[in-house]
Amino acid sequence: MKLNIAVLPGDGIGPEVTKQAIKALTAIASEYNHSFKFTIADVGAIAIDKHGDALPEKTLELCKNSDAILFGAIGDPKYDNNPDAKVRPEQGLLKLRKEMGLYANIRPVKAYQTLLDKSPLKKHIIQGTDISIYRELTGGIYFGKKELSEDGNYASDLCAYSRDEIERIARLAFVAAQNRDHKLTLVDKANVLESSRLWRKVVKEIAVEYPDVKLDFLFVDNAAMQMILNPKQFDVILTENMFGDIISDEASVIGGSIGLLASASVGDKYAMFEPIHGSYPQATNKGIANPIASILSAAMLLSHFGLHNEAELIRLAVEKSLKLNITTPDINSAIDTVTTTNVGDFVEDFI
Amino acid sequence: MKLNIAVLPGDGIGPEVTKQAIKALTAIASEYNHSFKFTIADVGAIAIDKHGDALPEKTLELCKNSDAILFGAIGDPKYDNNPDAKVRPEQGLLKLRKEMGLYANIRPVKAYQTLLDKSPLKKHIIQGTDISIYRELTGGIYFGKKELSEDGNYASDLCAYSRDEIERIARLAFVAAQNRDHKLTLVDKANVLESSRLWRKVVKEIAVEYPDVKLDFLFVDNAAMQMILNPKQFDVILTENMFGDIISDEASVIGGSIGLLASASVGDKYAMFEPIHGSYPQATNKGIANPIASILSAAMLLSHFGLHNEAELIRLAVEKSLKLNITTPDINSAIDTVTTTNVGDFVEDFI
Ligand SMILES: CC(C)[C@H](C(=O)O)[C@@H](O)C(=O)O
Ligand SMILES: CC(C)[C@H](C(=O)O)[C@@H](O)C(=O)O
Repeated sequence: MKLNIAVLPGDGIGPEVTKQAIKALTAIASEYNHSFKFTIADVGAIAIDKHGDALPEKTLELCKNSDAILFGAIGDPKYDNNPDAKVRPEQGLLKLRKEMGLYANIRPVKAYQTLLDKSPLKKHIIQGTDISIYRELTGGIYFGKKELSEDGNYASDLCAYSRDEIERIARLAFVAAQNRDHKLTLVDKANVLESSRLWRKVVKEIAVEYPDVKLDFLFVDNAAMQMILNPKQFDVILTENMFGDIISDEASVIGGSIGLLASASVGDKYAMFEPIHGSYPQATNKGIANPIASILSAAMLLSHFGLHNEAELIRLAVEKSLKLNITTPDINSAIDTVTTTNVGDFVEDFI
Repeated sequence: MKLNIAVLPGDGIGPEVTKQAIKALTAIASEYNHSFKFTIADVGAIAIDKHGDALPEKTLELCKNSDAILFGAIGDPKYDNNPDAKVRPEQGLLKLRKEMGLYANIRPVKAYQTLLDKSPLKKHIIQGTDISIYRELTGGIYFGKKELSEDGNYASDLCAYSRDEIERIARLAFVAAQNRDHKLTLVDKANVLESSRLWRKVVKEIAVEYPDVKLDFLFVDNAAMQMILNPKQFDVILTENMFGDIISDEASVIGGSIGLLASASVGDKYAMFEPIHGSYPQATNKGIANPIASILSAAMLLSHFGLHNEAELIRLAVEKSLKLNITTPDINSAIDTVTTTNVGDFVEDFI
C-alpha cells in the first residue's frame, strides 16, 4: 500500500516521540513492502515562532493532501502563563481538528498485564480493564462563541451542540460497541445542562437501531468517580468534547502512564493519529519521553487503513518492550532506564 | 448558643442520613448547653410531588430566616431519564444556592488512617492526603443562559464569569491556604476557554495580596490525572463550578467512599451544609446509606459558628466509629455490617 503521511511533530517532546513512530512505520513498510512517504510540517508554538501562525496555511494544505496525519504534541508554558496572548499553540491543534472535520477522537485505555504494578490503582481494580473512549472533538465549548468584555472583567464560552454533531459520533460509538462488549455508556450532565439533555435524547433515539448494544447513562461527576472505583464496568464510553478531555486524561492512570495512550481522530474524509499526552516541556530533549503512545498511534494509523497484521506487529513489539522492561523512567524504576531512542530502536529491530 | 437550623432532607437517602446528623447535633446541644431548633422543609423530587415545585417558596423563606441549612440530597431517576421534564429536582438545589448567594462550596478531602485500605488507590499514594477544594457554586455553565431550539435539534449552555464572582471565592481560598499549607492550585482550561483565562488573570492579580501563598495552575485534564497519581501534592484547590463538581467527586475515591465527604456552601449572608454524595435512590430505606458525610457536615456547621470544640467532638466520634469498624457496607466488608441508624446511635452515644 502507498500512503502519504503528513508528520506534524509540534512542540516539546513531540519531535522526539514522533521520530520513533516514523522508525516503526518505516520498518513496517520495508517488512511488508508498503511505501510510506513522510512529509514534515510545523504546528503549534514552533509554528508561531517561525511563521507567526499556530497552523500555517502550508501545513493545513499538506494535511488535506495526505492520506493521514501523524501528530506529536503542542503547547508551551510561555503562552499558558500569558492570558493576554493573541496567538496560542493550541489554536493550531483546534483549527486542524475543525478544518479537517475530525469529529471523533477515539482513545483506547487498557491495563497491560506487565504494568499492573505501575498504576496508582490497586491491581484487582484495574486488571482486565479495556475501554474505548469516543470523545466528540469538533464541537461543544471548545468551538462555541467566546466573549471577553471591553474592560476585561467578564468572559464567556458557549457550549453548543446540534443533533447532527451528536448523531455521527454516536453511530461510530455504537458500531464500536457492537464489535466489542456490546455496552455503551453516555457520560453527560443531563441534570444541569440543556446540551447534555440533547445528547441523551439523540443517543436514546439512535439506540433503537443497535438493539444488541446495552446503553446506559452516567453523570460526568459520577463517571469521574466510577472510572477509578471500578473501571472494568466500562466498555465504550461516549461523551462530548470537554468531558472527554477530562475523563480520558483521568483514565490514563489505569495504564500506569499517560505515556502509553494513543488516539485516533477521525472524520468522514481525514484521519489523524496522536498520543494523548501533551508537549511535556520539562522533559524535552532529555531522552526520557515515552515514545510508546506515539508508536501505538502509528499502529492505529495502520489499522485505520486495514493493515491489521502490521498494526498487530507494532503492538507485539510494544508489549515485548514492556515485558523486557525496555522502558522510559515514567514506567521504569530501574536506575539505568533506557532512552526514548532506545525504545524506538527496540521496536524497529523487533519488526 | 441559639441556632435556628432549617433541615431539608430531600430525596432518596437524604432523609435517613440527615436524621443521624440531627441526632449528633442534638447530643452536642445537650452536652454543651446550646439550643438548636430544627425546622424541616421539602426540596427536590419530593417537593415536586407534593407542591409541584422543587424549591417551594415556603422552603426558601424558611432558609432565609434560619441561621444555617442542613441539606440531605436530591435527585430521582424518573427525571434523569426524561430529557423533556419541565421541572427537575436539581433545580431546587441550584435555585437555593443561587437565591441564598452560596457562592463557595468547600469540600475537604482526607485519607483517614483507619481506612487507607478501602481506597482503590494504593496506600502510599493516598497516605497523608489533606485537600480543601474551593468550588465556585453560583456561576459558570450551571447558571448561564440555556437554549433549546424550537425543533429540538440544537441546544446550548453558556459558561460566563465576571471578575467579582472570581474574586470573592478566590479570597476565601487564599485565606484558607494561609491557614493551611500555603499552597493554592487554580484548576482551569486556560488554553481553550476565555472564561478560564479570566480566572487565571484575576487570581494572579489577587495573589499579590497573599505573598505567603504559593500559587500554581493546572489544566483540568491534567488535574484529573494528578488527583490520582499524586493527591498529596495538593493543599487548597480553587476552581469554577463544573470543574469543581467533577474533580471533587473524583477526589472522593481517596477516602475510600463518597459516603464520608462533607461540604459547606457559604456566601456573605448564609451557609448550608451537605454531604457531597447524591440521593442514591437504589439504597433508600435499606439502612445501608453511610450517614458520616451528613454527620461531618453537621460538624462543619458547628465550626462555621465558631463552635470548634463541639465540631471536634463530632469528628472524634466519627473517627472512633471508623476505628471500631462501626460502619456501613460501603466501607465495611464484614458480613454483619451495621446500619445507618447504628452509626448515628454510636456517634450520639459517644457525644
Ligand atoms: C492541548 C489541548 C487543547 C487538547 C484538548 O484539550 O483537546 C489536549 O488536552 C487534548 O486532549 O488533546
Ligand atoms: C445534583 C447536582 C445538580 C449537583 C451539582 O452538580 O452541583 C451535585 O452533583 C453536587 O455536586 O452537589
